[in-house]
Amino acid sequence: MAHPHAPSMDVQDTLQRLGITIPPAPGAVAAYEPWARTGALVFTSGQLPWRDGVMAFAGRLGAELTVEQGYQAARQCALNALAQLQAAAGGDLNRVRRLVRVEGYVHCAAGFRGHPQVLNGASNLFNAVLGSRGAHARLAIGVSDMPLDAAVQITVTAELDGPAG
Amino acid sequence: MAHPHAPSMDVQDTLQRLGITIPPAPGAVAAYEPWARTGALVFTSGQLPWRDGVMAFAGRLGAELTVEQGYQAARQCALNALAQLQAAAGGDLNRVRRLVRVEGYVHCAAGFRGHPQVLNGASNLFNAVLGSRGAHARLAIGVSDMPLDAAVQITVTAELDGPAG
Amino acid sequence: MAHPHAPSMDVQDTLQRLGITIPPAPGAVAAYEPWARTGALVFTSGQLPWRDGVMAFAGRLGAELTVEQGYQAARQCALNALAQLQAAAGGDLNRVRRLVRVEGYVHCAAGFRGHPQVLNGASNLFNAVLGSRGAHARLAIGVSDMPLDAAVQITVTAELDGPAG
Repeated sequence: MAHPHAPSMDVQDTLQRLGITIPPAPGAVAAYEPWARTGALVFTSGQLPWRDGVMAFAGRLGAELTVEQGYQAARQCALNALAQLQAAAGGDLNRVRRLVRVEGYVHCAAGFRGHPQVLNGASNLFNAVLGSRGAHARLAIGVSDMPLDAAVQITVTAELDGPAG
Repeated sequence: MAHPHAPSMDVQDTLQRLGITIPPAPGAVAAYEPWARTGALVFTSGQLPWRDGVMAFAGRLGAELTVEQGYQAARQCALNALAQLQAAAGGDLNRVRRLVRVEGYVHCAAGFRGHPQVLNGASNLFNAVLGSRGAHARLAIGVSDMPLDAAVQITVTAELDGPAG
Repeated sequence: MAHPHAPSMDVQDTLQRLGITIPPAPGAVAAYEPWARTGALVFTSGQLPWRDGVMAFAGRLGAELTVEQGYQAARQCALNALAQLQAAAGGDLNRVRRLVRVEGYVHCAAGFRGHPQVLNGASNLFNAVLGSRGAHARLAIGVSDMPLDAAVQITVTAELDGPAG
């Protein structure tokens, strides 16, 4: 099945040009799966800012963390989400026909208002890596208590090409 | 493709009878889209109570705002969501085959319990404007810190008739 | 249409073996529906830990409630979600082709970190009752103020076999 926006960039070429390496897909931390597919849609579980097996960004925006650290945390969540999508797509991110929705949960102290800036760390990565196929609707919510003290959590809903995995 | 509940009210007639004007669809405030479509489904981004370009309801339920103000805030979010659906449906709300899900996030102070009453401001509007096609599942959550200090945020998932936009 | 993992356990047999009775499906507490269907997908509204018409688990994890109580609260929400899926599937849980996504919202005091353990009360039930068809992606979020003071709220997205209800 052809991509809807052909001719489109090869995602591996884009990643190489940007100097981005997709990390190994983090496993689930409890009795669930890292992603699930139904028809053409894949839903990732909540992605935390794991990096090399370590929670790279812990704490709250507006308290222990700066907006720039939050931005990097959201970017790390997005890298992990891309790893899940790659796994769901049988290893080939070119099979992502389009992102659909990104949910962004920002761990923050009372009065924090920079949720959009923080979550742009995820959205900008998706747009850079996937181009027009990365366009997505977004939800942005502040959370007072996050699992594992993570700074940010995101989920992704995406549409895949080809047969169900 | 026929609507599943034909003969059904024309949505424009209903809006006129109710004296409701769909506002211009608010743009996204960061690096995402106001809505995204996959197959027959459209997902809106989180809708805030913007009115004429101003955040019409800021603050927390159970603190700065009354339940009635929260109800009006949720109604304003729902008007903006209808504007997004109208855009996604090529300008014709009659192409909304059915609402599917409404997520409602209520900005509130500790101990607030009136989430259902507040969010009925959105649900009642959807039911009034779309009739039986407005029926929806709902999530209601309290949020301690909301982007832009908005009183309420909602998202909508809906099923559209006709070809993908 | 055949189930994808045939031969599969009959869900009624599994429930009987586990000594689990699906409760009556709780009604919605406001102007929405307990579930909605679009194509093969059903989305439940947020399920609270109602049991015999009473809010069986009220309060916050990390304050009034222990992790074990939270686990039981999540399990009760999951039982109610199964009741909604059974209704959406015309009374036959064998028509659940697969769970897709579980959203888990944990009502908690500042500093609580046991969200995954609490929500396993829901995930473990789904896995036990539905077997491989119960596998799901999951979101886990802490919430400072929950409707009706409920300890936990979950939603389920599932794929059903057969014609739209």
